[in-house]
Amino acid sequence: MSQKIFVFDTTLRDGEQVPGCQLNIEEKLMIARELDLLGVDIIEAGFPISSPGDFKAVEAISKVVQNATVCGLTRAVKKDIEVAAEALKPAKRSRIHTGIGSSDIHIQHKFNSNRDEILQRGVDAVKYARQFTDDVEFYAEDAGRSDIEFLARLTEAVIKAGATVVNLPDTTGYLLPNQTFERISYLVNNVPNVDKAILSMHNHNDLGMATANTIAGIQAGARQVEVTINGIGERAGNTSLEEVVMTLKVHKDLGLYTDIKTEKLAPLSHLVSKTMRMPVQANKAIVGRNAFAHSSGIHQDGFLKHSLNYEIMTPQEVGVDKSDIVLTARSGRHAIKHRMELLGFNATKEKLDEIYEEFLLLADKIKEVNDKDLVGLVRPMLEEVEQ
Amino acid sequence: MSQKIFVFDTTLRDGEQVPGCQLNIEEKLMIARELDLLGVDIIEAGFPISSPGDFKAVEAISKVVQNATVCGLTRAVKKDIEVAAEALKPAKRSRIHTGIGSSDIHIQHKFNSNRDEILQRGVDAVKYARQFTDDVEFYAEDAGRSDIEFLARLTEAVIKAGATVVNLPDTTGYLLPNQTFERISYLVNNVPNVDKAILSMHNHNDLGMATANTIAGIQAGARQVEVTINGIGERAGNTSLEEVVMTLKVHKDLGLYTDIKTEKLAPLSHLVSKTMRMPVQANKAIVGRNAFAHSSGIHQDGFLKHSLNYEIMTPQEVGVDKSDIVLTARSGRHAIKHRMELLGFNATKEKLDEIYEEFLLLADKIKEVNDKDLVGLVRPMLEEVEQ
Repeated sequence: MSQKIFVFDTTLRDGEQVPGCQLNIEEKLMIARELDLLGVDIIEAGFPISSPGDFKAVEAISKVVQNATVCGLTRAVKKDIEVAAEALKPAKRSRIHTGIGSSDIHIQHKFNSNRDEILQRGVDAVKYARQFTDDVEFYAEDAGRSDIEFLARLTEAVIKAGATVVNLPDTTGYLLPNQTFERISYLVNNVPNVDKAILSMHNHNDLGMATANTIAGIQAGARQVEVTINGIGERAGNTSLEEVVMTLKVHKDLGLYTDIKTEKLAPLSHLVSKTMRMPVQANKAIVGRNAFAHSSGIHQDGFLKHSLNYEIMTPQEVGVDKSDIVLTARSGRHAIKHRMELLGFNATKEKLDEIYEEFLLLADKIKEVNDKDLVGLVRPMLEEVEQ
Repeated sequence: MSQKIFVFDTTLRDGEQVPGCQLNIEEKLMIARELDLLGVDIIEAGFPISSPGDFKAVEAISKVVQNATVCGLTRAVKKDIEVAAEALKPAKRSRIHTGIGSSDIHIQHKFNSNRDEILQRGVDAVKYARQFTDDVEFYAEDAGRSDIEFLARLTEAVIKAGATVVNLPDTTGYLLPNQTFERISYLVNNVPNVDKAILSMHNHNDLGMATANTIAGIQAGARQVEVTINGIGERAGNTSLEEVVMTLKVHKDLGLYTDIKTEKLAPLSHLVSKTMRMPVQANKAIVGRNAFAHSSGIHQDGFLKHSLNYEIMTPQEVGVDKSDIVLTARSGRHAIKHRMELLGFNATKEKLDEIYEEFLLLADKIKEVNDKDLVGLVRPMLEEVEQ
């Protein structure tokens, strides 16, 4: 029996706070509607107490979202929780996301406090938030560097206080996947009431391992992933929604699924990139311009023989039109022949050898050979024969 | 005792074959020199038989590289090996990188062959290459999807034939880190002569897990990583050199090190991005424009209190000047106060509250508040007091 992974999108909260990414309210509404259509389960819409603009955005998003739960971030502070509840009032389904730092480095240097006091503040915040909604998520900030026994105690306490989801962020993007797996396994095995709540992964990408850490966490038993479109977010960003979703789709052996309509991934990636002014690099997994492009001779030859040689998923699955083949000096005979045929040219084996030699000289010179260049090269050489 | 991980850079081979990334020979030489200064152990300079231009580039690079081994790619074909050996002749230290597809999907659909025949072709290629150099690396293409028992048999056979390094590429970017760990562990435990060669990781990033897979492989015993600057390469790219190197540096507990001079990472990232016309996205780990930028109020406050709250490495370590703080509507009082002080302004608590309210209105409007904007806001408000 396949189990569902809940997708919690924080593009409009953890993503939107990035330098240069700020959106106006119409842009936020447009993206929220698209996330809802994409099939995410929870939309984190903002941090209502942080500014009047953010409050209004969360309120407006709460009005338009049809299917997803709308979530607002707070600190473990009464006023934050009240303001978030107020902003979320119009939502069909709302969630308050409250929490506090749980690593000793945060407890000592940021809160100048101690573990017991922090645990009590967490418990109080969850109880207070539950007065406004039945759906309360608790975050243990910097869980990735927190003492694991304290983290288990804190998790147990906030679940007892009414938390329906416990989020265990790797705030600094520090963990390795095997460490994430061990830590989440520890909680699954040592928190007595862990079955009363969903554990959530919220990873940052400082070492390039956010996606792998998120997958490791759900392999250990977490059932929610906190992600952003294109992996945007603080510093090196958050976990990419598209990478986690497609990993679960490609690895059906994991027995896990999401409700994401994957064919909408590429279009939504473009929309977010454009409105947030955050270009996606060509070699970005899943949604980069080159993600489905094959260029080397060895690869092109194998790809043309059998596309599964080099593709574990199809571009159509993520809403991209087709696998592109770009001809360069590294392209082989087979690729040239195939492209020529698509353009309506046939050549004998001997002629193809001649064409290929000329092609290599051209490609060394102009780097990329497009259809027009190829026609310009091939037509006179084939016409010679006919004359 | 810390163990060395060998860094095999393939920016100029697997990276350079990407659509739009083609370099002229002067650009290749410039990057090869910088890679040598960065401290990589092996520079894969090209695929000499693929085109006359590539042959000349490998030859030229072989002449200028001072410290690193220069490597050329070949198929398991005599002519390829002869041409590569010829191109590598001027190198102080040279390596031939030969190999063949080892997964059933490649064996059947690409080579129309069988396992025994493929194994023999691999062995023959290694033996032939050893006639030209003592340093021969064998790649088992699509090792990630190869039958593990056959892969062990193939690895044993090519080591016996003289391979000094065996490269096990996840050609399609398919594996999860725990699978990589299990597969490399299997080889370490089941290939009798495995201690006679170095196992190498060559991962692709189609699911966003190249770095995590590479680290998992070396946790299992691999001792070489095949990487590119900025993670450029076919489709979603190769493993990022900078991510693997910094992961090992941050996770000293792994007991592994590289000889990379990490403070050269950011400058070389810029050079490669510029010459290869491959922009690096702002949220790219280690070398993205935002990799060390903090913008949210909670984070800025914590960061100013103690930078280790939010940083697991310093920007100076990778050659970036400093952690940037950008003010937005999500910035807190503490960040505003700190920036004001840097600009020479002091305010009473009450005045700061007033300034902060005005700041939020401004930030909601103009999104990003730079120093000039802040001075424009703060100066009149403080001058009022003085008047």
